Amino acid sequence: MPAPLANDLFLRALLREPTPRTPVWLMRQAGRYLPEYRATRARAGSFLGLCTNPDYACEVTLQPLARFPLDAAILFSDILTIPHALGLGLEFEAGEGPTLAHPVRTRADIDRLPTLDPERELRYVMDAVRLIRRELGGRVPLIGFAGSPWTVGTYVVEGGSSKNFARIKAMLYGSPAELHRLLEKLTQATIDYLNAQIRAGAQAVMVFDTWGGALSPAAYAEFSLAYMARIVQGLIREHDGQRVPAILFTKGVGGDQLALLAATGADAVGVDWCTDLNDARRAVAGKVALQGNLDPSVLYAPPAVIRAEVGRVLESFGQGSGHVFNLGHGIHPDVDPAHAGAMVAAVHELSPAYHRGS
Amino acid sequence: MPAPLANDLFLRALLREPTPRTPVWLMRQAGRYLPEYRATRARAGSFLGLCTNPDYACEVTLQPLARFPLDAAILFSDILTIPHALGLGLEFEAGEGPTLAHPVRTRADIDRLPTLDPERELRYVMDAVRLIRRELGGRVPLIGFAGSPWTVGTYVVEGGSSKNFARIKAMLYGSPAELHRLLEKLTQATIDYLNAQIRAGAQAVMVFDTWGGALSPAAYAEFSLAYMARIVQGLIREHDGQRVPAILFTKGVGGDQLALLAATGADAVGVDWCTDLNDARRAVAGKVALQGNLDPSVLYAPPAVIRAEVGRVLESFGQGSGHVFNLGHGIHPDVDPAHAGAMVAAVHELSPAYHRGS
Repeated sequence: MPAPLANDLFLRALLREPTPRTPVWLMRQAGRYLPEYRATRARAGSFLGLCTNPDYACEVTLQPLARFPLDAAILFSDILTIPHALGLGLEFEAGEGPTLAHPVRTRADIDRLPTLDPERELRYVMDAVRLIRRELGGRVPLIGFAGSPWTVGTYVVEGGSSKNFARIKAMLYGSPAELHRLLEKLTQATIDYLNAQIRAGAQAVMVFDTWGGALSPAAYAEFSLAYMARIVQGLIREHDGQRVPAILFTKGVGGDQLALLAATGADAVGVDWCTDLNDARRAVAGKVALQGNLDPSVLYAPPAVIRAEVGRVLESFGQGSGHVFNLGHGIHPDVDPAHAGAMVAAVHELSPAYHRGS
Repeated sequence: MPAPLANDLFLRALLREPTPRTPVWLMRQAGRYLPEYRATRARAGSFLGLCTNPDYACEVTLQPLARFPLDAAILFSDILTIPHALGLGLEFEAGEGPTLAHPVRTRADIDRLPTLDPERELRYVMDAVRLIRRELGGRVPLIGFAGSPWTVGTYVVEGGSSKNFARIKAMLYGSPAELHRLLEKLTQATIDYLNAQIRAGAQAVMVFDTWGGALSPAAYAEFSLAYMARIVQGLIREHDGQRVPAILFTKGVGGDQLALLAATGADAVGVDWCTDLNDARRAVAGKVALQGNLDPSVLYAPPAVIRAEVGRVLESFGQGSGHVFNLGHGIHPDVDPAHAGAMVAAVHELSPAYHRGS
């Protein structure tokens, strides 16, 4: 049995249990805004070199915890590990974003995709999870993650980043059965991948649906949400005698979609900064915890302003449990680390007032 | 007095008057997806050369009308004509997007901005409007337009396109009084600019708020919506004995913001494809007409699929007047023009069923 957690605020908030304050972490907290991250990245030689080496992945995962009193660690990895393991030729070119040399566009391409064994093809991720858990020594919980099938699918079909999603939307509208076939395969791979992370030691898991907001409401429900719901249904929900909470996050959707996400059986739903947390809380009607939602660009402002904006987010969620403080999307690479620290400090300082009844 | 309009469906729909079918036009209908546009652009030598020459601007404005039975023409221009006229050093580099050599970042920069006389510094736009009106000969109405102060402000402060809006958001959160000072100046320039377009012959005007959706709800209300509301209040609402409808469009906002837009006094509100039109119609509660909202990427699909998706949009708005069919954002440059034609044809064919009571 692993050591009991010294700080389980994050897990308790996800399960909407009382906590003395609001827990806090930052999406992309292990990342380019930290000089120590850039130093490790330089030693690794490349972004993929960083992801695929468990020692480096562990090192950068722990870096933000040494700076800030964060309530969770998140595995350093990428949402494109599955396409990488599927042999689609993932590369990260400097300043370019990811490319896949072998995009998946035909029925034959889809049928050719292999079935993954995460402990074999994605062993480096599981080794990183095991190593991070050991190094954390129960200080805070470790979050595992994956991209949503739709979001990963956009890269798999387009062959990289995309502005208009021309090819996958042509497939979505013109050959929906083929896109469903691809998304089913990605969904099964994602379930197996996240369950392997849980078995390796991830204490909560999060699904990042970065591009679900590019879809119409009908297309979102059919091509993104439905597959995230299947992932939630397929996850191990208890491990080592502990509930393993699942968080779903679609960037760029509002109240109606948040209500659908809350109905999937997930424990928590991420909210970007374009929806007020009080509206989000009303939309999910007590079914899930909420995670978010400071505009990441607030961190460009001076610390006193950051503190005031943290206060607005806390006030918007209001009294009671079930809130994990976070940004509404990943921290920008050009943010001053001291400003991230100001955000974390403000949550520590201001949030107890919202948990007086706990 | 100008010739009476042969086709006034668009204006009537904006005023929620009965029409026998739903009028249709496409955002960016005069644009790169048309080979004849690319030919004129090549003759003009540059994008700015195209915008600043009334003959070229007129030529490309009319091109889509020669191909498709559209119910409105929209002035060919750019939302950055005002920064150009303010002397901020606008350039469009090939494949790069716009840049401004002299961004506005300090109080001194803001105070130095000159007051514009649109008939002098933006004379080329007014000449284009007059020429297009003459060439249209009353076939369909002409739409004038401008960018919203917030959206134009993002370029003015950042010095070009932006991903995270680092500088303007640092100003928004850190020095809000200065940003308000800039937005006030841009608002007055925009009112004068749109009124000059109306005097020159624009029969409806539209304000494009491309980046309002990047703001939190509170910041949107304060820094984007409030200035669009002031524009609506400052517009000439009747010219040559005709009501001049005003359309506001913020990309990337949902029902709550649509309700705020509807309360500004605008005649119509644009809706992107991420909100269902029936939800939008409920949100605006009969106060305005709606314009939209087919996902522009549907035009990558085959014509039969386009037709079906047009049907879904019409059905989503439902019975009655007050709907102008459009895409939910500008047409993508790599779309087959025949697919735009399929969309327009489908609106002509399928929409009369929604106007039986008219």
